[in-house]
Amino acid sequence: MGKPLIFVTNDDGIDAKGLRIVIDIMREIGKVIVVAPDKSQSGMSHALTVNAPIRFKKIKEEKDYSEYKCTGTPVDCLKIALSQIMKCKPDLIISGINHGSNSSINILYSGTVAVALDGALHGVNSVAFSVCDVSPETDFSHLTKHIRTITLQTLKNGLPRGTCLNVNIPRANGSEIKGIKVCKQADANWNDYYVEKTDSSGEKYYLLAGYFENEDKDECADQCAIESHYISVVPLHIDSTNYDLIDNLKTWNYEI
Amino acid sequence: MGKPLIFVTNDDGIDAKGLRIVIDIMREIGKVIVVAPDKSQSGMSHALTVNAPIRFKKIKEEKDYSEYKCTGTPVDCLKIALSQIMKCKPDLIISGINHGSNSSINILYSGTVAVALDGALHGVNSVAFSVCDVSPETDFSHLTKHIRTITLQTLKNGLPRGTCLNVNIPRANGSEIKGIKVCKQADANWNDYYVEKTDSSGEKYYLLAGYFENEDKDECADQCAIESHYISVVPLHIDSTNYDLIDNLKTWNYEI
Repeated sequence: MGKPLIFVTNDDGIDAKGLRIVIDIMREIGKVIVVAPDKSQSGMSHALTVNAPIRFKKIKEEKDYSEYKCTGTPVDCLKIALSQIMKCKPDLIISGINHGSNSSINILYSGTVAVALDGALHGVNSVAFSVCDVSPETDFSHLTKHIRTITLQTLKNGLPRGTCLNVNIPRANGSEIKGIKVCKQADANWNDYYVEKTDSSGEKYYLLAGYFENEDKDECADQCAIESHYISVVPLHIDSTNYDLIDNLKTWNYEI
Repeated sequence: MGKPLIFVTNDDGIDAKGLRIVIDIMREIGKVIVVAPDKSQSGMSHALTVNAPIRFKKIKEEKDYSEYKCTGTPVDCLKIALSQIMKCKPDLIISGINHGSNSSINILYSGTVAVALDGALHGVNSVAFSVCDVSPETDFSHLTKHIRTITLQTLKNGLPRGTCLNVNIPRANGSEIKGIKVCKQADANWNDYYVEKTDSSGEKYYLLAGYFENEDKDECADQCAIESHYISVVPLHIDSTNYDLIDNLKTWNYEI
């Protein structure tokens, strides 16, 4: 069997340190094609560029490696890579390493996780990696071997269509990583607020702020695992139906 | 009990016909506050405006009614309404009526559905309405009574925190609507492709295109219900964990 073909993107943009680290790891495993946003696309979730032009440009080509930057969102990068650049499905889609946690409900807002979910829709083994540290100068030295392990296990075992892995890695803080834990998505939440500012013309504008609050104490929840210095691995799937509620809803009076 | 407080937004923008129709329906039911995007935000999913200013402006005030336009995404509109405009939780969040289907995996890309999911996170009863017709001049005459029924039933019965309703209504095509059907999210997909164009400077750019393909023949799937002239109601929840895969993943060799 030849080297696997690995597609890599992120949402922090082409110059992010996390992307550079993951590219180095993936180049030791397979042939790599990178198509990443030409600027930060953090918080863009599953957004698509609709009715507007997308452009991309090759910026590097070496043996078993090519790299492109793209004007679109993270999911645009994946879709245009599949359709216009690779013109075939890769063996693996890797998204990240995101600078900042994508545990719990952060998956809703994350462009990094959106790529992995979209990859799963295309039937490709897909993994989103995030490190729980938003600094652009994050220390990644503690996580490369774990990313390699999870990547190789994903290639070996495979994932069912429609399911990807969401991996969150505690930041390097002097404590050893205790291990890799398969988890569920925690039921935590953001408490949003806005900072009011006034521009030079006297008009008010608002900047999003907020703090994250985890009341889910289940030790199988990803946020709890991270807080206990474990790497969390959550299988996420596309189907968001709340099956438990279907029978209840059928008792509602929908007569027309 | 007083009139319920209903928050309304959409992703097609403040001038969309679908928004105007749903506002009229909701004003018959309760007090209404509208904060909608000042331009189309279609395909924006759960995107948030991060590290950039958001502005909003009141454009109408009448008895039990106020209307604002906002520079942000649909989810920004909801978050800024909760935090800066209403300063309390409404009894109901209504998103739509979207011009175009949000059945099946369209929920991933839809700003309309993202608002309802975010509302569910805040513990507010939330419903996304879409009509399966992308025309800006869609005929809405066949659906107002059904939207009223679903809205009143949601207010009466309530939804658990973290779950919203995703409602898709067939377009008016001469056939009677057969009824309202509680469904699961169909396992259908988009086949994406890009149309290559060349700009005046000779540079290539790409426009997203695609066709929707439904191979899910389960009559409980939303897309099948719509094709059979039923209105589909799918309970969607925030938790995307694929619980069925957790035991399998625990057998992977993650030793470190």
